[in-house]
Amino acid sequence: MSATTRHETTIEADPSLPTVTVTRDFAAPPERVFRAWTDPELIVRWLGPKDTPMRLQQWDARTGGSYRYTAERDGEVVASFYGSFHEVRPSLRLVQTFTFEGVPDGVSMDIISFDDLGGGRTRVTCLSVLESIEGRDAMLASGMETGVIEGYEALDELLAAG
Amino acid sequence: MSATTRHETTIEADPSLPTVTVTRDFAAPPERVFRAWTDPELIVRWLGPKDTPMRLQQWDARTGGSYRYTAERDGEVVASFYGSFHEVRPSLRLVQTFTFEGVPDGVSMDIISFDDLGGGRTRVTCLSVLESIEGRDAMLASGMETGVIEGYEALDELLAAG
Repeated sequence: MSATTRHETTIEADPSLPTVTVTRDFAAPPERVFRAWTDPELIVRWLGPKDTPMRLQQWDARTGGSYRYTAERDGEVVASFYGSFHEVRPSLRLVQTFTFEGVPDGVSMDIISFDDLGGGRTRVTCLSVLESIEGRDAMLASGMETGVIEGYEALDELLAAG
Repeated sequence: MSATTRHETTIEADPSLPTVTVTRDFAAPPERVFRAWTDPELIVRWLGPKDTPMRLQQWDARTGGSYRYTAERDGEVVASFYGSFHEVRPSLRLVQTFTFEGVPDGVSMDIISFDDLGGGRTRVTCLSVLESIEGRDAMLASGMETGVIEGYEALDELLAAG
């Protein structure tokens, strides 16, 4: 599998649990993929939809740290997000919280695992846990799919560029 | 209702969701109850089982802050815990993450609401969300009930003392 292979993004919503599981393989070893998730200079180059670049106000990717960022379109802030880094376990696992400020009472806990597939490949599994099935369904209905898929495609390119 | 009335602690585990809901009334207004949950000098006076006092290594109760504490018995550390304060909304709501280091992959997200019942009374509802029903059941089986009930009784006394 080469870096130019299109990878499939799987988004699964458990019918009976308030969770979403996103699974995606990347053509780079866990250390590099993990770094793209935690380094403030790299995360801004791929996360989220293509037409709304993110701008970091705060990004402290260590256990007990926190983050805040905005998404901008044509130079205007269209959305703000914040959360905490509950756990940063290098090259293996991230546990983060996440709130979109447009839904101030909404919050998800995201458990992101980086599994070494060998041969310079990594499977990233992001399990988002919400407080209710309704909250989960609202998150799915918000159009997260486009942002996830476009972001992961940008990450493919970033990883291929080295 | 006076501060000396015994209050009932309700612990509910949803059969179909990976959640635990603990509900408890306190004989003090939300501002005071919230402060007992966030002030480092107060939290150590009530949280957890009576025979294992807690010692804070870190306690930064603001949105984006974090905490770490140990439980000690006869001067020896018997358990360690850490987490983040995702959101601190004064007198209304706390969203925290929580890991018992004895189960390093276990994590819960706790959404704590402080509802003003009037007449100087507050209902505290703590919704813990875990990633799986199995994780939730393990938390219940760990004996959390004793710690919650004894802690809340200590908090009653703290609030009654003013």
